[in-house]
Amino acid sequence: MTKSYDQVCALAREVSIINSSASVLSWDQETYMPDRGLGHRAHQLAYLTGKAHELATGKKFRTRLEKAEKEKRAFDSKEAANLREWRKELERAVRIPKNLVEEESEATSHGKAAWVEARKKSDYALFAPHLEKLLGIARKKAELWGYEGEPYDALLAGYEKGASTREIDKLFSALKPELTQIARGAVEASKGVSPTALRGKYPIEKQQLLNREIAESLGFDFEAGRIDTTAHPFCTTLGAGDVRLTTRYDERDFTSSLFGVLHEAGHGMYEQGLLQEDFGLPSGTAVSLGIHESQSRLWENHVGRSRPFWEKWLPRAAEIFPHLKKVTLDEFLRSIWKAEFSFIRVEADEATYDLHILLRFGLERRLVDGSLKVKDVPQAWNDGFEELFGMRPPDDARGCLQDIHWSMGGLGYFATYTLGNLNAAQLFAAAKKQRKIGDSLARADYAPLLKWLREMVHAKGSLIMPRELIRSATGREIQPKWHLTHLRERFL
Amino acid sequence: MTKSYDQVCALAREVSIINSSASVLSWDQETYMPDRGLGHRAHQLAYLTGKAHELATGKKFRTRLEKAEKEKRAFDSKEAANLREWRKELERAVRIPKNLVEEESEATSHGKAAWVEARKKSDYALFAPHLEKLLGIARKKAELWGYEGEPYDALLAGYEKGASTREIDKLFSALKPELTQIARGAVEASKGVSPTALRGKYPIEKQQLLNREIAESLGFDFEAGRIDTTAHPFCTTLGAGDVRLTTRYDERDFTSSLFGVLHEAGHGMYEQGLLQEDFGLPSGTAVSLGIHESQSRLWENHVGRSRPFWEKWLPRAAEIFPHLKKVTLDEFLRSIWKAEFSFIRVEADEATYDLHILLRFGLERRLVDGSLKVKDVPQAWNDGFEELFGMRPPDDARGCLQDIHWSMGGLGYFATYTLGNLNAAQLFAAAKKQRKIGDSLARADYAPLLKWLREMVHAKGSLIMPRELIRSATGREIQPKWHLTHLRERFL
Repeated sequence: MTKSYDQVCALAREVSIINSSASVLSWDQETYMPDRGLGHRAHQLAYLTGKAHELATGKKFRTRLEKAEKEKRAFDSKEAANLREWRKELERAVRIPKNLVEEESEATSHGKAAWVEARKKSDYALFAPHLEKLLGIARKKAELWGYEGEPYDALLAGYEKGASTREIDKLFSALKPELTQIARGAVEASKGVSPTALRGKYPIEKQQLLNREIAESLGFDFEAGRIDTTAHPFCTTLGAGDVRLTTRYDERDFTSSLFGVLHEAGHGMYEQGLLQEDFGLPSGTAVSLGIHESQSRLWENHVGRSRPFWEKWLPRAAEIFPHLKKVTLDEFLRSIWKAEFSFIRVEADEATYDLHILLRFGLERRLVDGSLKVKDVPQAWNDGFEELFGMRPPDDARGCLQDIHWSMGGLGYFATYTLGNLNAAQLFAAAKKQRKIGDSLARADYAPLLKWLREMVHAKGSLIMPRELIRSATGREIQPKWHLTHLRERFL
Repeated sequence: MTKSYDQVCALAREVSIINSSASVLSWDQETYMPDRGLGHRAHQLAYLTGKAHELATGKKFRTRLEKAEKEKRAFDSKEAANLREWRKELERAVRIPKNLVEEESEATSHGKAAWVEARKKSDYALFAPHLEKLLGIARKKAELWGYEGEPYDALLAGYEKGASTREIDKLFSALKPELTQIARGAVEASKGVSPTALRGKYPIEKQQLLNREIAESLGFDFEAGRIDTTAHPFCTTLGAGDVRLTTRYDERDFTSSLFGVLHEAGHGMYEQGLLQEDFGLPSGTAVSLGIHESQSRLWENHVGRSRPFWEKWLPRAAEIFPHLKKVTLDEFLRSIWKAEFSFIRVEADEATYDLHILLRFGLERRLVDGSLKVKDVPQAWNDGFEELFGMRPPDDARGCLQDIHWSMGGLGYFATYTLGNLNAAQLFAAAKKQRKIGDSLARADYAPLLKWLREMVHAKGSLIMPRELIRSATGREIQPKWHLTHLRERFL
C-alpha cells in the first residue's frame, strides 16, 4: 500500500464513520425514538448525510483518489478493486447536481406522506402527481448518469452493480412460463391446507427465546448484533461488530416473527462475514442488493423452510409451545409450504413471490422508458396481475399502491428480489455439491454452510461484481434453473 | 435579532446537531449496543465530539461571535445573555490546548479501566498513579482557565456556573453540625425498621407499568421521552422532543426502580421544560448540575417520598402487587424513610446522603490545592468518614475507590449533589408558599407544581445564573435552612 492509497482509505473511513453514525440514528428512529423526537432527528440525519456526501465528493477526496489511481498496481489487487469502486461511486455522485438532490429529497418526503394517505384511502389520484414528479427525477438522474442500453440500466446500477436491464429481462422471461406453472400447481396442491392449522397462543417472550436460539445456532453472532421489534423487519449495520436485526410478532402465529428473523439473520450474517477491518472500504462492503437478498433467502427458504431443519426444530418449538406437540412434521411442513395467490407481495409465499416481482419489473421498466404513463399505472397493474395470478385486485390499495418503494424514489429496485432468489438457489445447490453441505444440514450443523458462504460470498466484499461472484462461487453464469428446480421439488 | 447574531445561532445549532447525535450513540452504547460494537462506537464518538469542538472553537465561530458582540443590545435581552454564555464557553474551551485535551482523553480512558480493576480488587495502589495523572491535568486546566479564589473554583465553574468554592464551603459548614445531628437521630429512630419489610416478588413488567403510570402523572411526557434499562440510572437528551431516562430493576423491591425513575424523571421534566425552539442555544440549555439535581431531588424526595404521594400511590401499587395490601401506609413510609449509616454513597438514604458529599468536597478541594497528597487519600478518606459516620470503611472499595468521578477526570463535581438538595428544598418551600402547591399535591395533582417549576426554573434555560435563579424563584439567597427543616420534619 502507498501513502496516497492510505489517504484515500482514511477519507473513506471518515465518510463511513459519519454514515454509520447516521445508521445508529435511523435504527433508533425505527425502534425506540419517541414521536416528538422526529423533527430534530430529521435535522440530525440531513446534516450527517449531507456532511458524508460533501466529504465523499469533495475536492480533497477527488485529488487523493486521482493521485492513488496514477500509481502502478496489479489489476486484481484489493487496492485496485477498491480504487475502481471509489471511482464509480464518485462518478455517479458528482453527476447529480446539488439542487436535484434537494429536489429529490423534498419530493420523496412529500411522496411518502402522499403515498401513506393514498394507500389508506385506496385513492391513486392522491399519489399520481407525486409519482409523476419522482419518475421525472429518476429519468433525469438516469440521463445524467448515462447508460448503454436503456435508462432503466442507470437506475438499476445503483442497486445491482454490473447488471443490465436486458439480461434481467432475459432471465425473467426464461423464468416466467415454468414459474407460472409451478405457482399454479402449488396453489392447487395447497387447497386442502387450513390456513389456521398452527394458530395458537405464542407469547412474545417465548417467540424471542426460540428465535434467538435458532439464529444463534445458524451462526448469527449476538456479541456483534441484536434483535429488536419494528413494524417492518429489517437489518442494518451500525458499525464494525454491530449488526441489528428487527422483526415483528404475531401472538397467534410464531412462524411470522421466526421467518422474519431467519431472513434478516441471513442479511446479518453476510454483514458479520464482511472483512471487519475493511469496514467503510468497498472491500468490506456488501456488493449489491441481489447478493444481499440471496443470503437472506438462502437461510430463510432453503435452510429454514426445509424438512431437515424442522426435524430438528419442531420438537424444540413444541417444548416451548406445548400445543405444537399434536402437530406432526408433515402437517407442519404443509402449513409453512402452503401456497396461495394473494394480492400483497410482502405476504406472498415462496411459490408465488416472484410473480409479484415480474409484474413490477415490467411496469417500472416501461415507466422509465416512457412507454407507460403514470395515469395508466392502475390499469396496467391490474391487467398484468390478472394475467399472472388469474385474479384482479379489488382496489389500488391491494394493487399498485401497496409498495413503499416508488414513493421513496426507489425505481429500479424490485428486480433485485428475484435476482436474490435465483442467486440463493444457485449458491445453495453449489454448496451442497461442492462440500456435501446436505449431510451437515441433516445433522442441524449449519457451520459448514456458513463457512462456505463466508469464503465464497462474504469475504469478497465488493472486490468482484455480483455476476462474477456467482460465477466464481458456483462455476456457472446466473440461471433460473436451480430456483425452478427448488420450487418444483418443494411444491409439486 | 441581527444577521450576525443569527449566524452565531446557526453555528451553535450545528454544534448541537453533532453533539446530540453523539448523545444518541452514547445512549445506545449504554442501553442496547452489543459488546463487539464498542471499538467502532469509540471511533464514532471521538470523531463527532472532535468535530463539534472544532466547530465551537473555530475561527468562523469566533469571528461571528465578535461581530455580534459589537452590536448594541439591551443587557437583559435573551440575545445578550446567549452571547455572554457563548463567550464564557469559548474562553474556557480555547484556553485548553489540543494536546492537553488528548492527554486527558487518554488518561481518563486508562484511568477508568484502572479504577474498575482497583475497585474490584480493593487495591488503591492500582489507581493512585492514574489519579496522580488526572489530578495533575485538572490542576493544569485550572491554571489555564484561571480563578479568583483558589484553583478548585476553576474546576467547579465547569459544573456550576457562577459558584465559588468559598461560598460552597460556607454553606456546607453551616449545614454540617445540624445535618450530623439529624442523621444520627434519623438512624437511631430507624433502628427498629426491618430492611426487608417490603420484600416480595415484583416482576419487572409490572414495575414498568407502575413506574410509567407515576412518571406520566407527574408530567413526564412519553411522547417526547422513554425509559430503558441500564446498570446505572441516568437521563440524557437526544434532541428537542427526545429525553431518555433509564433505571434498573430489583425483582425483590419495586422501590429501587421507582425512585430511580422519579429522580431521572425530575431531570427529564427539566429538559422537557426548556425552550424547545432554543435547543442548542444557552437559552434552551440547563444552567448547571446543581439546578439539574434540584429538579431530580425535588420530585424524588419532596414529592415522591412524601406521605400525600403514597396516600395516592400505595393503593395503586397494591393493585399491581397484591401482597402490598397487608402493608399499612405508616409501615410503608417507615420503610422508605429508613435511615442508616452506610459506606456507599449511591445507596445512601436522604438523611445521610449529604454527609458523603461533605467528605468528598473537602478531600477534593485539598487535592486540588495540593494540601492533600494522592498517596494519603485512603487515610484521609477513612479518617473523615469515621468523623462523620462514626465508623470506618473496612476497605478502599467501600471507601475512596467507590465513585467513578475522579477516574473520569470529574474533579469539582461532587458539591453539586448537595447544592441540588439545598436548591430542591428551597424551591419546594417557595412553591408551596407562593401557590399553595401543598393542596394540589394532597389531591395528587402535580400539574401546578410542574407549572411553577416550568416558569421559575425550566423556561430560564441558562439566561440567568444558578444563584440568581434561586434568588428570583424563592426571594432568598441559597441557604441550608429549608433542607434542614425538611430533613428534621421527615426524620425526627
